[in-house]
Amino acid sequence: MAGNTFGTLFKLTTFGESHGVAIGGVLDGCPAGIELDLEAIQVDLNRRKPGQSAIVTQRKEPDTVEFYSGLFEGKTTGTPIGFAIHNTNQKSKDYSHIKDSYRPSHADYVYDQKYGFRDYRGGGRSSARETASRVVAGAIAKQFLGDMKIHAYVSQVGELKLDKSYQELDFNLIESNPVRCPDQETAARMEDYIKQIKKQGDTIGGVISCVIQNVPVGLGEPVFDKLHADLGKAMLSINAVKGFEYGSGFEGVKMKGSEHNDQFNTDGSTKTNYSGGIQGGISNGMDIYFNIAFKPVATVIQAYETIDKEGNKVTTQGKGRHDPCVVPRAVPIVEAMAALVMADFSLLNRTIKL
Amino acid sequence: MAGNTFGTLFKLTTFGESHGVAIGGVLDGCPAGIELDLEAIQVDLNRRKPGQSAIVTQRKEPDTVEFYSGLFEGKTTGTPIGFAIHNTNQKSKDYSHIKDSYRPSHADYVYDQKYGFRDYRGGGRSSARETASRVVAGAIAKQFLGDMKIHAYVSQVGELKLDKSYQELDFNLIESNPVRCPDQETAARMEDYIKQIKKQGDTIGGVISCVIQNVPVGLGEPVFDKLHADLGKAMLSINAVKGFEYGSGFEGVKMKGSEHNDQFNTDGSTKTNYSGGIQGGISNGMDIYFNIAFKPVATVIQAYETIDKEGNKVTTQGKGRHDPCVVPRAVPIVEAMAALVMADFSLLNRTIKL
Amino acid sequence: MAGNTFGTLFKLTTFGESHGVAIGGVLDGCPAGIELDLEAIQVDLNRRKPGQSAIVTQRKEPDTVEFYSGLFEGKTTGTPIGFAIHNTNQKSKDYSHIKDSYRPSHADYVYDQKYGFRDYRGGGRSSARETASRVVAGAIAKQFLGDMKIHAYVSQVGELKLDKSYQELDFNLIESNPVRCPDQETAARMEDYIKQIKKQGDTIGGVISCVIQNVPVGLGEPVFDKLHADLGKAMLSINAVKGFEYGSGFEGVKMKGSEHNDQFNTDGSTKTNYSGGIQGGISNGMDIYFNIAFKPVATVIQAYETIDKEGNKVTTQGKGRHDPCVVPRAVPIVEAMAALVMADFSLLNRTIKL
Amino acid sequence: MAGNTFGTLFKLTTFGESHGVAIGGVLDGCPAGIELDLEAIQVDLNRRKPGQSAIVTQRKEPDTVEFYSGLFEGKTTGTPIGFAIHNTNQKSKDYSHIKDSYRPSHADYVYDQKYGFRDYRGGGRSSARETASRVVAGAIAKQFLGDMKIHAYVSQVGELKLDKSYQELDFNLIESNPVRCPDQETAARMEDYIKQIKKQGDTIGGVISCVIQNVPVGLGEPVFDKLHADLGKAMLSINAVKGFEYGSGFEGVKMKGSEHNDQFNTDGSTKTNYSGGIQGGISNGMDIYFNIAFKPVATVIQAYETIDKEGNKVTTQGKGRHDPCVVPRAVPIVEAMAALVMADFSLLNRTIKL
Repeated sequence: MAGNTFGTLFKLTTFGESHGVAIGGVLDGCPAGIELDLEAIQVDLNRRKPGQSAIVTQRKEPDTVEFYSGLFEGKTTGTPIGFAIHNTNQKSKDYSHIKDSYRPSHADYVYDQKYGFRDYRGGGRSSARETASRVVAGAIAKQFLGDMKIHAYVSQVGELKLDKSYQELDFNLIESNPVRCPDQETAARMEDYIKQIKKQGDTIGGVISCVIQNVPVGLGEPVFDKLHADLGKAMLSINAVKGFEYGSGFEGVKMKGSEHNDQFNTDGSTKTNYSGGIQGGISNGMDIYFNIAFKPVATVIQAYETIDKEGNKVTTQGKGRHDPCVVPRAVPIVEAMAALVMADFSLLNRTIKL
Repeated sequence: MAGNTFGTLFKLTTFGESHGVAIGGVLDGCPAGIELDLEAIQVDLNRRKPGQSAIVTQRKEPDTVEFYSGLFEGKTTGTPIGFAIHNTNQKSKDYSHIKDSYRPSHADYVYDQKYGFRDYRGGGRSSARETASRVVAGAIAKQFLGDMKIHAYVSQVGELKLDKSYQELDFNLIESNPVRCPDQETAARMEDYIKQIKKQGDTIGGVISCVIQNVPVGLGEPVFDKLHADLGKAMLSINAVKGFEYGSGFEGVKMKGSEHNDQFNTDGSTKTNYSGGIQGGISNGMDIYFNIAFKPVATVIQAYETIDKEGNKVTTQGKGRHDPCVVPRAVPIVEAMAALVMADFSLLNRTIKL
Repeated sequence: MAGNTFGTLFKLTTFGESHGVAIGGVLDGCPAGIELDLEAIQVDLNRRKPGQSAIVTQRKEPDTVEFYSGLFEGKTTGTPIGFAIHNTNQKSKDYSHIKDSYRPSHADYVYDQKYGFRDYRGGGRSSARETASRVVAGAIAKQFLGDMKIHAYVSQVGELKLDKSYQELDFNLIESNPVRCPDQETAARMEDYIKQIKKQGDTIGGVISCVIQNVPVGLGEPVFDKLHADLGKAMLSINAVKGFEYGSGFEGVKMKGSEHNDQFNTDGSTKTNYSGGIQGGISNGMDIYFNIAFKPVATVIQAYETIDKEGNKVTTQGKGRHDPCVVPRAVPIVEAMAALVMADFSLLNRTIKL
Repeated sequence: MAGNTFGTLFKLTTFGESHGVAIGGVLDGCPAGIELDLEAIQVDLNRRKPGQSAIVTQRKEPDTVEFYSGLFEGKTTGTPIGFAIHNTNQKSKDYSHIKDSYRPSHADYVYDQKYGFRDYRGGGRSSARETASRVVAGAIAKQFLGDMKIHAYVSQVGELKLDKSYQELDFNLIESNPVRCPDQETAARMEDYIKQIKKQGDTIGGVISCVIQNVPVGLGEPVFDKLHADLGKAMLSINAVKGFEYGSGFEGVKMKGSEHNDQFNTDGSTKTNYSGGIQGGISNGMDIYFNIAFKPVATVIQAYETIDKEGNKVTTQGKGRHDPCVVPRAVPIVEAMAALVMADFSLLNRTIKL
């Protein structure tokens, strides 16, 4: 249980370092008989890909996925889906500034302490490059889920907050701007702000919101594997995430029970949805929605003081092509992780009645 | 994987319904040789117990734990620790208001939909009564952890927020008031407020903060089983939890990387701790701290309209002895879940080097 | 993963030492809605119980199971089924001969080496008493399995071998004699032989055969979790088991492929069944059958030389009331483990197609 | 848990079909800091490879493994080791005889029934080609195990049985002949016999014996994850295996306890070793030894009658280049699976004491 596997039945294991030969994974437990749209998988990979717009890192990585197994005549066979994305830029770079010293708020120090040494190239296993494998598996999960629809979007960048509930938004606009905020006016302001931050060689945090629609009643397993607990873990496992809340979230603590309780309609739906589509860890058929906080990327293109392996002070300089704000590219990752969770619980839910 | 097991190596499985014969659990993987202080376990159970103060439910449950196995001559033997807490009040009550209709924002409806029927007495498996088993196992985990210290406390009730960082607090004061807020003045205001809410037959949400000290570097497994991801799942699996954030959390999204980065001291510690003691999912030796949002308890002692199983509108009345605010009693539960996570990762971390 | 859990979805965790307060378990993942015949569970427990006939140990243990959770109005609720069997004779005995020295071919020595010390009373966790919990869970699994029927019986005691294929036997006769061999004449000879061995204060090994009928096609998961691999593990986990073979087994190695291949009938069934009902790890709809070898019980009522904890030679004397041959009482244990495996794969098989 | 993962901490997940793009796997949980001898891995792959001698299949597959991750500067990093072996002959063949009908005693029929359709090329996922991935991971496990030595060899082919105990054999001779039987005279007779079988277009079964030396005391987890139970499962998961026995095995059932008990020497070792190095599921420091029965390969190069998907009788002809006897090539597979089990329990055993 070294931590590189996610899911119980719909189960993804990933491998790969940022600048190793390849990253990839094995998706085990994907049901047989899904006619797989490979293009749709690549589309999600492209949404995560570096270099897609002016506000993300300008690194060039084609991120083309090769499938090794588990597909036959266009359909999943029920056997494990092995896949790889070869790293194309793994050789050339100069890592001396990373190799010999620890970047603040990166995982360099803890990896060295934990394992005794580390693959320092580009962050190695701790790089968010690993999430490309999640996007592949998540894109397959989405196709398994059929009508269940997952929409993630950027709802905050720094202090700039989208002050609209998800019901007021048109999810079709998410992909219409590089920020992936479905409110065009807010998106424009966010975009400007990110550019400004980038010019400073600095970075900024943000929030992604996610909505899951057309969820059947009954997904989620009491008591430890509550649906929102696994969604939370899924999101918190994404690089740079610092918080997760669903439904009324942290704001809900201020409410009284008499206000917060979601009254039933006669069809079992509820008049309000402070619960966020989940009761007692089990989906109740209403929309599931949650927010995820991302810290500012740790790599700043500025000089900074830090320590080397021996604990000596060193002064170094952040360099390379990095994201000034991680949330635009993290949108498909959030969707992917949500899809993996929902697919897993969909399968589990087939096993709970006689 | 029906969801009643938590942990990989230090592994708790719980059973039991609110008004069944008994609740309890099996703790498997607890290392041999721990001299167990059984009194300390009961102390934590008492901190969670109903009836302990005027601001919690006045139900009477002695919550005495019986150990069935895994202990010999006062020490853990390395074999599974089976335990049970018999329910003493499981027979007498009148549940007609729960049996035939669905309480809003409770799990009644989803259990019926998922399983076809449910043990409606006192919420059955969805009752927070289950968490007593977690407290037992968590209290054992604490003893395994030794010097690693876990302090949870109430930091918000409704709009009343404790505006002090944890460094300004004296954890010895947590148990000095029924709210379990270590700031006496704030605690007093919170207590008054909860009493007022209770008088209205209403309930209110709150926040628990938790700090883990003396954490060794290296706990947490990349990439899915990041330390904070499992802490998050642990907390989100507690009844009524709506959100989790660690370190800078949701506030951190507003910061720039140049501000947020924790600069190193020469001993590997950091000057600031926005990271919350965790880098890349692995503990870095600094204090771990996080916040957990709890919604207002759904049971209000007021008349309300809802639906019955056939979807007919019914009017009913909340009754019984319930908590007006869940956070005071949830403090030991938060600690227990944190202890289980830290114990599990402590064991896992023994296996990662040659 | 300390080894006290069996199964993936239909999942049993057991606890308890031979002479502790109680043994028991938690069965998680048992589907909701099974109308449970509690009497049938006790019947299986009684088949395993000491003192049931002249050829088994004469210890008195009532082995009455108490259910703590997971049942409501006579049906399983889908929540974990917690249960316990209190030990009634845990206090009185004299264990000095076990406490200070290591019984040959028992687990005393390895437990001390592994854990640093051990609960020496009656073998502690290594006692076959633990299997009573398996019988409880297995009896529930049988009821879940419905028409799938599991018949285990004694087919060999020492050199006395039942030389009939299972098709020649009447399974209704299994319970008609204390040996649990469905051939009355062979059973009588086995019974006499066991009595003779007992008189000598000695013990003897044996073989249990097991047949599973009415198995649907498709159970078993390639590639590691082959149906027969999990059946094998299940059987090998039973105390005293030394071997497992299914279908043609060890004899099959002498055959040629042209003889061994099972030719198809037009309905997908096969003319022969050397495969033992499993192809490529997946049930093919034919009867599943297998054999399990049990060693002679290690406790002999004779004087023997051994070592104490310090490695000094000591002479001691086996005493107590022990089984001269384990197989008659192991029949329900074999059935229970087979039922757990089949139930688990039945649930898993619901998840493999779109 | 779709069955393509083996192990708890030292954990292998494999993927790949016989004639897909590639087979491979992810080894997660391999400790950091092992200086990996890549050549030794390829040596084991070559021992499993087709075409290595006149008595195995004459197919040509180079079976060159590529490592994608988890290694840095010649050492394991503690991150998952991803690897692939590209299939070089996946395109050319004619599979019409497999596609439209079911080969007897193959998995064709059950895959179609279970999944609705199958990748019929070369057996797809049910092909023993998958075991090449196990050999890769097992070879890494061997290097982790250090002094613990695993020796597998052929001890029976058809009726030809090597009638020597393992103590009488020189393991250095195992690789000296194509059968992998360390007794040269018996090996020669086995080789002749296999050639004769091959000429007939037929196949024959066999037995592999395996010995593990220098095992520390304490490996294996009671009660379900007994060391021999997991070894048994590991072996039974290998294609064509029909039986597993360890220590005295099936012959041991004929013995009396007074004969079978292994008396202690004063150093904790035992005078005899009927126990096969394992007591109560835990290694006792003596040699572990076991036998594995392999059925005759199902593919015979003869005409045979079978059924097609619609249940019509068809007559077809076995063709291609197949193994007349699987055991010579299965020797490194047995070693690999044994190594994976021992590595996993070695890691687990680090976690059981305070």
